[in-house]
Amino acid sequence: MNFCSHCGQPVSFAIPDGDDRPRYLCAACGTIHYQNPRIVAGTLPILGSRVLLCRRAIAPRKGFWTLPAGFMENAETTVEAAARETREEALADVAIHDLYTLINLPHINQVFMIFRADLAGDFGAGPESLEVALFEEHEVPWDALAFPTIERTLRQFFADRASGDYPLHISDITPEDRERYFGSA
Amino acid sequence: MNFCSHCGQPVSFAIPDGDDRPRYLCAACGTIHYQNPRIVAGTLPILGSRVLLCRRAIAPRKGFWTLPAGFMENAETTVEAAARETREEALADVAIHDLYTLINLPHINQVFMIFRADLAGDFGAGPESLEVALFEEHEVPWDALAFPTIERTLRQFFADRASGDYPLHISDITPEDRERYFGSA
Repeated sequence: MNFCSHCGQPVSFAIPDGDDRPRYLCAACGTIHYQNPRIVAGTLPILGSRVLLCRRAIAPRKGFWTLPAGFMENAETTVEAAARETREEALADVAIHDLYTLINLPHINQVFMIFRADLAGDFGAGPESLEVALFEEHEVPWDALAFPTIERTLRQFFADRASGDYPLHISDITPEDRERYFGSA
Repeated sequence: MNFCSHCGQPVSFAIPDGDDRPRYLCAACGTIHYQNPRIVAGTLPILGSRVLLCRRAIAPRKGFWTLPAGFMENAETTVEAAARETREEALADVAIHDLYTLINLPHINQVFMIFRADLAGDFGAGPESLEVALFEEHEVPWDALAFPTIERTLRQFFADRASGDYPLHISDITPEDRERYFGSA
């Protein structure tokens, strides 16, 4: 941020009076520009013993497999966002169950939320997907998953499936987790 | 938003190519300014049979009672945000348990998250609170609560306490819910 989005004058980056961390400040009009984490919402669509995955057609991680998920928009709920992303990326309608994983990614200012869902009908590749397919546990392309959030959610799902109990899992992904996942590249 | 925060030129509000909703667009530098919901994180601090509430020293709803909660900041986790807000508003440390309510407020682009927590030690009024106190169920100032999210979380807590089972409650607050809560004023 270089300029005030309200009045167009240059901003500074400093701690406002009474605050405890730096913000982008406009001396001209007095606006304080707060910046906050964004939610990535999506689903884990299930059909019988198989899970649905999408192969990404766009950066980042083009060509790698992911769950349908994306940035929550204004004026929608978390459940609506998860269902919309599933329609857009997998051309699929789902019946959404519980919130299943909530993963904090503080180094990139994101909160990732995946809902368990039952696939309801057909599916296909939306414009952001190269292909969409169903996988048994032993078929999951573990070495070609897009993000550590996806691997963690899938591993928790297959572990929980043995008991049939799917509690909410809250966890964090650290820069070290990411480095381990993506390697040094 | 009137000006591009990257280059300072005026922005337009229109649907970008390949998108399905209007965004603030900068024709000069090409930046698309996405806007997304914000998370409000906090706790329901419990000591024995009592719950902790804070009376707000600031707008909105100054003088009304609330749970300690506020906007999640960049570079922190949801649990860290909830604990920080509790320290700031109630000068209290807490041991955080599960996520307890997740309430979507799509008309104001917020997602409200309250974690159940055990109060660990002293408390007091932080700069954003007029007073902080513990309440038995029959003492809760139901007619002087700040927001419908707070009333809903407290009512669910006292209902669940009978069984000792505290599942995550996901719900939405609609404009009609708000109107009913705040009245026509």
